Amino acid sequence: MSTPAYNDLYQRHQRLHRLAHLQSMAQWDQSANMPSKGNEARSLALAEMGGMLHQLATEPQLKGLLDAAAGEPLTADQRANLREMRRVWMSSNALPQSLVEAKSLANSRCEHAWRTQRPANDWAGYLPLLRECVRLAREEARCLSESSGLGLYDALMDQYEPGMRAAEVDRVFGDLRSWLPQLIKDVQAKQAQETTLRPQGPFAKEAQRALGLAAMQLVGFDFEAGRLDESAHPFCGGVPEDVRITTRYREDDFLPSLMGVIHETGHARYEQNLPREWLGQPLANARSMGLHESQSLSFEMQLGSHPAFAQLLSPLVTKHLGAQAAFEPANLNRLLTRVHPAFIRVDADEVTYPAHVILRYEIERALIEGQIECEDIPALWDAKMMELLGVDTRGNYKDGCMQDVHWGCGLFGYFPCYTLGAMYAAQWFAAIRRSRPTLDADIAAGNLAPVFDWLRSNIWLQGSRLETPDLVKAASGETLNPAHFKAHLQARYLA
Amino acid sequence: MSTPAYNDLYQRHQRLHRLAHLQSMAQWDQSANMPSKGNEARSLALAEMGGMLHQLATEPQLKGLLDAAAGEPLTADQRANLREMRRVWMSSNALPQSLVEAKSLANSRCEHAWRTQRPANDWAGYLPLLRECVRLAREEARCLSESSGLGLYDALMDQYEPGMRAAEVDRVFGDLRSWLPQLIKDVQAKQAQETTLRPQGPFAKEAQRALGLAAMQLVGFDFEAGRLDESAHPFCGGVPEDVRITTRYREDDFLPSLMGVIHETGHARYEQNLPREWLGQPLANARSMGLHESQSLSFEMQLGSHPAFAQLLSPLVTKHLGAQAAFEPANLNRLLTRVHPAFIRVDADEVTYPAHVILRYEIERALIEGQIECEDIPALWDAKMMELLGVDTRGNYKDGCMQDVHWGCGLFGYFPCYTLGAMYAAQWFAAIRRSRPTLDADIAAGNLAPVFDWLRSNIWLQGSRLETPDLVKAASGETLNPAHFKAHLQARYLA
Ligand SMILES: [Zn+2]
Ligand SMILES: [Zn+2]
Repeated sequence: MSTPAYNDLYQRHQRLHRLAHLQSMAQWDQSANMPSKGNEARSLALAEMGGMLHQLATEPQLKGLLDAAAGEPLTADQRANLREMRRVWMSSNALPQSLVEAKSLANSRCEHAWRTQRPANDWAGYLPLLRECVRLAREEARCLSESSGLGLYDALMDQYEPGMRAAEVDRVFGDLRSWLPQLIKDVQAKQAQETTLRPQGPFAKEAQRALGLAAMQLVGFDFEAGRLDESAHPFCGGVPEDVRITTRYREDDFLPSLMGVIHETGHARYEQNLPREWLGQPLANARSMGLHESQSLSFEMQLGSHPAFAQLLSPLVTKHLGAQAAFEPANLNRLLTRVHPAFIRVDADEVTYPAHVILRYEIERALIEGQIECEDIPALWDAKMMELLGVDTRGNYKDGCMQDVHWGCGLFGYFPCYTLGAMYAAQWFAAIRRSRPTLDADIAAGNLAPVFDWLRSNIWLQGSRLETPDLVKAASGETLNPAHFKAHLQARYLA
Repeated sequence: MSTPAYNDLYQRHQRLHRLAHLQSMAQWDQSANMPSKGNEARSLALAEMGGMLHQLATEPQLKGLLDAAAGEPLTADQRANLREMRRVWMSSNALPQSLVEAKSLANSRCEHAWRTQRPANDWAGYLPLLRECVRLAREEARCLSESSGLGLYDALMDQYEPGMRAAEVDRVFGDLRSWLPQLIKDVQAKQAQETTLRPQGPFAKEAQRALGLAAMQLVGFDFEAGRLDESAHPFCGGVPEDVRITTRYREDDFLPSLMGVIHETGHARYEQNLPREWLGQPLANARSMGLHESQSLSFEMQLGSHPAFAQLLSPLVTKHLGAQAAFEPANLNRLLTRVHPAFIRVDADEVTYPAHVILRYEIERALIEGQIECEDIPALWDAKMMELLGVDTRGNYKDGCMQDVHWGCGLFGYFPCYTLGAMYAAQWFAAIRRSRPTLDADIAAGNLAPVFDWLRSNIWLQGSRLETPDLVKAASGETLNPAHFKAHLQARYLA
């Protein structure tokens, strides 16, 4: 059977993949290695490549090829790949070049200013810049909505979590909102009875790095297909064939780096185990940002903060940082499951984290839909922080509504992915536990294969073959169900 | 005055520079960072980019633009830039695509086999692969010669040392050949009287790295525009805006890494100080490989092995590796100027190094011109090694004619650059000394500015503005004159 149009598209995507490889590695290097004077040339090089990739992804022949390929005799996988090719093409074509350029300019101006305005608590200075980012994000939502037929916020969110809709987010976040504030209070009351030893630093960077590498080994990172390096903001980058994760080190506390490394290893193993024979094609892309986060949180939270996992971590910590009573498994697990409502999302524990996300979701959706304006953000922020977490942020912009750079970078519709990921992760572990009732004992014995085997066959090797709801159902027997997340928190924090 | 064709060419070269940035960084990463499983995807990505850059450099409009620009009212610098644009265009267009691909295939096959055949001393296995590389290099020489009108060997050498001709190499190497073997014997006889203390290892890698960084600082590397990393084969890569040098460490001896770092810093400072306002244009390229090597050898040999420089190096060595009698300045300098005829070019000292190059030049030129065939190489190698260095290589292919990978990589016409660089470096230092009679005292006092200032204004900031003979004359008052190299060796090794 002959499939000339599909084959042509296939070759074009292989080419995009090869060129995007150079872009990804240069971006990683920019964060992990590049000295300051290299930045201008690097930015110009990346902009040139970005423009070229966009040009290749929007060539006029593509529409005809996509239409022709739809009539060709394709296998089920090829048809799924074609569906994803069309998705890439749609999103590349949806925005006029002028909007892309205006966004890029406004966002980089806003992000640059934010770096000094945030520490100075300068909301008044930040506001006009943010307003321009919101104006352009609304314009972006309008264009994407016209092209896709989705609602304004849905059209933005669909770029990160294809198929997810605000109505569904409302359903699951509404559920969460109904029980989370009380659960936080209950956990705090319970933990007030506990005594937890604090580890005594300082912890040398080299020892922390060796500990991080040992933890990566424990959770199965393939060191022949990736590396650990350092950067100001930890991330997982590179390419599926060569995944680069980064961390940062604080001499006074080793846990943020250690758990950050385990988190990024979850992202990394997803990338390292995407379907190899499809690499270079959209079918081999990770399914969504929420699914990606479900992998990092499976590693960091479901597994990494599991009481039995502390028995595996404890000897590694002792080996690399020396013996301390605080490193005993039970105490280590108490450190990792400490619940404390506070200002900063990225430092939040597993239990309070969703409150930070719900707040941002409600504000950004109202912003995009035009129900509020930027000047309304601080009062809403203060009210919701008080309501959800009992934390007073009035006047404290830098630890309040100025703490994240997402909006200033033009990222609207992204925040829900963090908590969707936490819910998916709980749903995966419920499924694993059903098929493997001895899971807790397995983990305590250092047998992590049941976890990784399940994730590999149900998530990693699936790539983008199925749409998200179908993938979730095929993996766990049901679509997204927030009851698993609730059950997980109750079992871990209140039992 | 309007220069539309020149302006068009200018923009195209800026674009090439931006894309080549990503290629350079990916190549550096491949040697310095990349884990093994990343290699296939990286090779495909680099091949894709190589093809694209070649396509951009050979677009059909370029001929017309180059011709039109020649008639436009250009400044002297613009005219020099146009000359270099034409040079890039000529060399990009000279070879048919089929030959480029056949060469790439044959060379990577030969290089790959060489990695195991060399340690196995397997000349018989290597011979047929090398024969194919020579066949293609002859074909390449024929194409380049047709396009440029140069002789066969000159056409190849012109790619690395534009303007240099075999007749000139014969003149200067002929001079060298007449006195070098006797000079080597005289130096050996003199050094046989000396006692030199050997440093006692092992030397930890981290301490050697810190020492290397201190030495780079001493000789002016700009750490805001570059880095030091590790790789199997030391090199200077990256881009002028962000220069990446590498080294490798041996625990039993710190001098190869230390002097290698100083050598690569010479290459790096040339790149870091090319004319900034021209970066991205051919005018801002380093002039030639011989000129490049003249910078690394100015740093490593002229300066680094100068007796007064040992007074600067000695405290750094002591600081990072601990105190040893062997680290006293006089002994350190004796270690750095030890002359010992031996098998391996890359390990050779300053005095015997040219003999290794002359031998390779004579053999590769005869190969390209068809006077000999690959099977003649071992006997010629043995005879010339005996004649020039008194070293017996019979039957020892791995330390003889199989030691270098250049020919297997298709590099013919490159070897002379190493010794041309050594001669240029001696000529620069003779010129610096004329304008600065206190040079030796300056160096001893740690005042290296007279050296760097001279190199910056006479070499670095010139880029490719002048053709090599004009640059050499403008810098030193005369064209290439091997008498300076002879005088340098006599003064340093026999005085
Ligand atoms: Zn994450
Ligand atoms: Zn060199």
